[in-house]
Amino acid sequence: MVSIGIIGLGTVGSGTVKTLVKNREIIEKRLGFPLFIKKIASLEYDRSFERLFPSNTITRDAEELFKEKLDIVVELIGGIDKAKEYILKAIENGSSVVTANKALLSTHGFEIFKKAYEKKVDVGFEASVGGGIPIIRAIKEGLCANNILSIKGIVNGTANYILTSMLEEGKTFQEILKRAQDLGFAEKDPSLDIDGIDSAHKTAILASLAFGTVLTAQEVYTEGIRGIEYSDLEYARRLGYKVKLLGIVKMKGGKIDARVHPAMIRETDTLAKVDGVYNAITVKGDVVEDTTYIGQGAGSFPTASSVVSDIMDVSRNIYYKTHLRIPLLSFPFQHIRKLPTIDINSLSMKYYLRFRVIDSVGVLAKIANVLGNHGISIKSVIQLGHGKEWVPVVLMTHRAREKDVKKAVEIVDKLDVVRDKTLLIRVEEDEDVG
Amino acid sequence: MVSIGIIGLGTVGSGTVKTLVKNREIIEKRLGFPLFIKKIASLEYDRSFERLFPSNTITRDAEELFKEKLDIVVELIGGIDKAKEYILKAIENGSSVVTANKALLSTHGFEIFKKAYEKKVDVGFEASVGGGIPIIRAIKEGLCANNILSIKGIVNGTANYILTSMLEEGKTFQEILKRAQDLGFAEKDPSLDIDGIDSAHKTAILASLAFGTVLTAQEVYTEGIRGIEYSDLEYARRLGYKVKLLGIVKMKGGKIDARVHPAMIRETDTLAKVDGVYNAITVKGDVVEDTTYIGQGAGSFPTASSVVSDIMDVSRNIYYKTHLRIPLLSFPFQHIRKLPTIDINSLSMKYYLRFRVIDSVGVLAKIANVLGNHGISIKSVIQLGHGKEWVPVVLMTHRAREKDVKKAVEIVDKLDVVRDKTLLIRVEEDEDVG
Repeated sequence: MVSIGIIGLGTVGSGTVKTLVKNREIIEKRLGFPLFIKKIASLEYDRSFERLFPSNTITRDAEELFKEKLDIVVELIGGIDKAKEYILKAIENGSSVVTANKALLSTHGFEIFKKAYEKKVDVGFEASVGGGIPIIRAIKEGLCANNILSIKGIVNGTANYILTSMLEEGKTFQEILKRAQDLGFAEKDPSLDIDGIDSAHKTAILASLAFGTVLTAQEVYTEGIRGIEYSDLEYARRLGYKVKLLGIVKMKGGKIDARVHPAMIRETDTLAKVDGVYNAITVKGDVVEDTTYIGQGAGSFPTASSVVSDIMDVSRNIYYKTHLRIPLLSFPFQHIRKLPTIDINSLSMKYYLRFRVIDSVGVLAKIANVLGNHGISIKSVIQLGHGKEWVPVVLMTHRAREKDVKKAVEIVDKLDVVRDKTLLIRVEEDEDVG
Repeated sequence: MVSIGIIGLGTVGSGTVKTLVKNREIIEKRLGFPLFIKKIASLEYDRSFERLFPSNTITRDAEELFKEKLDIVVELIGGIDKAKEYILKAIENGSSVVTANKALLSTHGFEIFKKAYEKKVDVGFEASVGGGIPIIRAIKEGLCANNILSIKGIVNGTANYILTSMLEEGKTFQEILKRAQDLGFAEKDPSLDIDGIDSAHKTAILASLAFGTVLTAQEVYTEGIRGIEYSDLEYARRLGYKVKLLGIVKMKGGKIDARVHPAMIRETDTLAKVDGVYNAITVKGDVVEDTTYIGQGAGSFPTASSVVSDIMDVSRNIYYKTHLRIPLLSFPFQHIRKLPTIDINSLSMKYYLRFRVIDSVGVLAKIANVLGNHGISIKSVIQLGHGKEWVPVVLMTHRAREKDVKKAVEIVDKLDVVRDKTLLIRVEEDEDVG
């Protein structure tokens, strides 16, 4: 019998409790021993949960959990401060922890994992990346024979839905965002999703697992999708690309390249074919090459599937007394070391640039001149508008340095023929391609 | 220190040994303890392997392995009889086993798993399905909170390559098969791949894991892709479908529906977008809904990635003395029971039918008449040729019973206007669609 306390009965918490109740038979059959939900703490919850448990199980006071001897504490309240406090207290008490809290782990992960290592308890966080996709387990166990070379992922379903719908329906960013909000899967304050912040949380966790480090979200270069227009997606399509908000991590000469930004990827790429709210993550290992994992990246039940799989895994470690059987971050904690990151300005890649200029003779020459002065050569001019008050000039560059491109764009944006801030989309291709 | 014996230095065996040697540092860092390759048996092998090990490590005589006390025996010779003998002998000796042998497990799995359960040793078989894709682990661990509702997979890369290339290049089955053989990824005797036999092996293993049973390949209804022509793929495309050789398992009222056959799936389906030699498997769970796993389904190193991940997993069970921590077939052996299968003749679905007839008045009426007499209604006539010696009549039916369709086709094929055996492709859609 393994005893469990759960903090939080929101979207994920409710799904977790419902799953534990509904699938109790198959869960215990697979485990070979029973799970016991001893305490649930939540400030607000659907009263129907009370019928499922003895009267003293559900409480409004999370502190009550810490009066019990619990094998596992499941933190599902989200946010940083309270969640961190509860998790550290649970670990201090000798309880293992299961959490879906990517914001917390990508900010205070080192402190939490260190404490868990010292107290010899487990921390399960499968639900923190990719919702129902068992991506953490794939990296920690399925691909454990590999040096991980790179991970690229669509890890925010809302952003992917917006980009997909804009292209399919020819609508504006604002129109689709509004609809996503009306449908309830984009927040009123959509910043976490569309500015890449949530993706950066997940990308930091993926990088940590891949490379035996503890990367924070603050170290992930982060750009969102606000500036993207339907026409950009359409130009990309004509060139054989899709635009996706990607989390990207790579190891280059002992340094971590970790970033989140809209990226143009070949339409034949597996990730390019993943549309709508789905998440997808491609992991490249030195032995297996690419494997890709696709599924629902959010939602009550998909996320609960991962939370409960963690509860079961950690329960087995408790039952068999094999805490930390699989190291928390894929490598034993004594091998975890802080690794330097690569400044995005030092990277070289190809760029899609969309300038918005007044329609006059010699505008392209002026832009080309600035780019040329910064060592950036133009691969192709995709669109050169004519006849309206202002027109787009859209072009692709050859491989160029980020630093130079940014400087050139800054100068172009000050030209008196330029009407708007220039949009830049990075082309994400394996280095050996074109 | 965990000691390992390996039998077989063919494609997968070589990759496995090379991976264990090349990635030794990261493997042992992740494990926290060393692995020791004590013995390797192979009748033929690349002599360069000898330089990697002390002189008495490699032998031509597999019996020598059984004189050692080995923690793990890795069987990579393939085939049935010898492999079974070695595996049972290893288990009898108290060694855990790692194998990629889908033919063996889908034939004698019950005997092997039963013996392993009795002797309390592990059997790792991640490499038996989906090559480098950690699909076994996903089902056993990642999705363990779910009742598995269905699994659909492209589990043979050669067949998928042939279907993909036929459509992309407009070539015949024979032309593409010949090229695949010349390129070395289709066997001289391609029957295992193109007749669906290899897919049936893997489908049986997936069904066993999903439903807590031991299904044999003999119980999987199996059809290959020999009859398919470019025109069929092209008609499917025009209708918004792709044709894939699928392994399908579903649970229906306590009975298993398990089959391998070419299937028409919607082009928007994740599996429809997986082309070339790649494998992809979609698992539907009652909590998580669909998750899909994509990667290279064969090849020396991708398969080795899975073999080595099993070696590491089993090693941990040996190191921590937690044999059978995760039950061999996802459910503890005492819960494994033989489940009945559903006869494909009792299923209902939609069908694509391609008749080849002489061009004369009233042919369609004759065919429609036979179909109508068997309760099969035509949804649409896709192609009704004219003018040559013989012409194709291609149509889609509404949902109909397999038994009735087969009987009707049998009668049509005897009509004097029919020039060739009728081709039938089943439409695989979720029951609630159309």
